[in-house]
Amino acid sequence: MLPAFSGALTFSALAQTETASIPLPSWNDGSAKQAILAFVAAVTREGSPDFVPPEERIATFDNDGTLWVEQPGPTQLAFAIDRVKALAPLHPEWKDTQPFKAVLENDMETLSKTGERGLAELVLASHAGMTTEEFQKIVIDWLATARHPRFKRPYTELAYQPMVELLAYLRSNRFRTYIVSGGGIEFMRPWTERVYGVPPEHVVGSSIKTRFELRDGRPELFRLAEMNFIDDKAGKPVGINEFIGRRPVAAFGNSDGDLEMLQWTTLAGGLRFGLIVHHTDAEREYAYDRDSPFGQLDKALDAAILNKWTVVDMKNDWKRIFAFE
Amino acid sequence: MLPAFSGALTFSALAQTETASIPLPSWNDGSAKQAILAFVAAVTREGSPDFVPPEERIATFDNDGTLWVEQPGPTQLAFAIDRVKALAPLHPEWKDTQPFKAVLENDMETLSKTGERGLAELVLASHAGMTTEEFQKIVIDWLATARHPRFKRPYTELAYQPMVELLAYLRSNRFRTYIVSGGGIEFMRPWTERVYGVPPEHVVGSSIKTRFELRDGRPELFRLAEMNFIDDKAGKPVGINEFIGRRPVAAFGNSDGDLEMLQWTTLAGGLRFGLIVHHTDAEREYAYDRDSPFGQLDKALDAAILNKWTVVDMKNDWKRIFAFE
Repeated sequence: MLPAFSGALTFSALAQTETASIPLPSWNDGSAKQAILAFVAAVTREGSPDFVPPEERIATFDNDGTLWVEQPGPTQLAFAIDRVKALAPLHPEWKDTQPFKAVLENDMETLSKTGERGLAELVLASHAGMTTEEFQKIVIDWLATARHPRFKRPYTELAYQPMVELLAYLRSNRFRTYIVSGGGIEFMRPWTERVYGVPPEHVVGSSIKTRFELRDGRPELFRLAEMNFIDDKAGKPVGINEFIGRRPVAAFGNSDGDLEMLQWTTLAGGLRFGLIVHHTDAEREYAYDRDSPFGQLDKALDAAILNKWTVVDMKNDWKRIFAFE
Repeated sequence: MLPAFSGALTFSALAQTETASIPLPSWNDGSAKQAILAFVAAVTREGSPDFVPPEERIATFDNDGTLWVEQPGPTQLAFAIDRVKALAPLHPEWKDTQPFKAVLENDMETLSKTGERGLAELVLASHAGMTTEEFQKIVIDWLATARHPRFKRPYTELAYQPMVELLAYLRSNRFRTYIVSGGGIEFMRPWTERVYGVPPEHVVGSSIKTRFELRDGRPELFRLAEMNFIDDKAGKPVGINEFIGRRPVAAFGNSDGDLEMLQWTTLAGGLRFGLIVHHTDAEREYAYDRDSPFGQLDKALDAAILNKWTVVDMKNDWKRIFAFE
C-alpha cells in the first residue's frame, strides 16, 4: 500500500487527459502524431492484418527525458545529493571522502569526474539502511518540498503533458503502459500512478537488494547497500522479460539507454512501434542529444533513422510541454 | 507473445469456473470455505471498516503443492530429469559426473543425496543455453507429452480444481491473482494463463540470468547457466515487493517455503487472509507435512495456528480435487 500523497503534489493534468475525447491535444498535427494514431488504429482494429489482442498490447516507456525532465541532471541524483547532505551529520568521514566531499562542497565538477562509480556510491549511501516503507515516505516528503532549479516547481509537475496524454490514449485503447527506467524502482513507484496513471506494479526499474526480517513480530524489508539490478541499456530487455514476460508492441525512449528496449520491441516481426523523444527545444525545455552527459542520444538516433522509428521533434511536435503552461 | 498451446493440453475447467455463479462449488461447506467467503465480503463491501480498494486487492499464490501436485517431486524436477536425459548424447562426461550420473541411471536415492546443490546443477544444465523463446517451446512440447507417474495424465491436468475456482472467485471480486513460486518463472509462464487464468505478467518465480544480443539483426535473450533470483522462503516477500510493489492482502501456500510470504502479507495490520493447504488425502492425492522431502510443512503449520491462518484439510474441505474426477 502506498501512503496518500501530500497536498503539495496534487496534479490534475492526468485526470483531465484521461477523459479527453480528442486524442493527443497537446501534439501538433505532424508526422509523429499521425504515426501514433495510425499504429494504434492498425493494431486495435478487429480483422486488421496487424491486429494485436488486448492482452498483448504492452507499451513500455523510459522515464527520465521521456516522461519528465532530466536536465540539468536526473531528479534522482538531486534526491541523492539532498539525502547525502541531510545524512552528513551522521557521517563526519564524508567531509574527506569522495564522492561525498564534492556533494557537501557543491562541487559538481569533481562529482561528475567520479563517474558512474561515484554516482553508484551516492545512491547506495542515500537509498539504503531503512525499510522499504520508510524509504517511500522519504521520497514522498522530498518530492513535496524539492524544486527544480530552473522551473522552480515540484519535479512531478515537470512531466511532459504530450506524453501523459499519450499514456492515457494508449490505455483507452486497451494497452497496458509500463515504465521501464534506469531509475530506481522504489524511487518511482510512490508517485507514478498519480502523475502518469501508471500503478506500482507496472513500474520496472533499477533496484538494490532487500532483506526480509521479522522485527518485534512485524514483517519488514530492509534496503541493503548492494546493487540488485541495473535496468538500463541491455538490461532493459532483460527487465522487461523478467517483470512482464511478454514482448512489448510499442516502446518509447529518448536516449542510448533505450536502444536495446527499442530493438527488442520492434525488430522481432509484426507491426511494432518505436519512438524517440528528441530534445530540440532549448527555450521551453532543453536541447541536447549526442554530447549530453545525461540522456545522451547518439547511437539510438542513428538506429531510429535506420529502423524507421518515430522521432519526436519536441520543438515542432509538441504544442505545449508542461501542464502548467 | 506466447505460442499457442498444443491440442493435448486443452483444459476447460477454468472456463467453466470463470462463469460459475455459485462460488467455490468444489469446496465443502466447512470453516475453510466460510473463512474465504467472509474475508472477501469484508474487504469488498463499500463502507466496511475492512474495505480494500480494488487496486490494492492483491492475492499471491504459491504454485507447487498449492495450485498443483508436487509429489512424488516437483514437476519442474521431472522436466529437468527428462531434459538431462535428452541432452546426454551431447555430454558424454555426464556418465561419470554427479548429479547427472544418478539421473541417467535413474538412481533417485543418490540424486536426492546431492541435495540443493545437485538440483541447482540439474536446473542450470537443463534450463540454460538457449533463447527464451526456444525455452518456452521446449516447456510446451514437454508438457504436451509428459505424464504424471501415478495419475498418468498431463501435469497441467493436476491443478487443484478448488484452487482454480478460488482464483476465479477472487478475480470476480476484483482481486488480481499472482503466482509467487519457488519454481522457474519461465517454466510457468507458458501455461499459467490457460490452466489458472493467471497471465505471464502476474507470475513471479525463480530465474536464471539472461543476456540480450542482436544476432543477425534479430533481438534475442540468451539463458545463462547462472542463478539470478531464488523466489522461495525469505525470497518471496523480496520478489513480491520487487515485481508487484504492493503488499498483498491475501496469501496462499502449503509449505515452509511460503512462511515468509504469509507473514509479510498478514502481520502488518489490517484485515488480511492467510491460507495453508494441508495435504491430508493419501487416497485422492497425497498426505504429507512435517517430514516430507518436498513441500515440507512444519514451521508454517505451527505459524498457521499461532496466526489464525486458515488451514485447508484437503480430505475434508475439498469435494473433489481434480477437474477430471
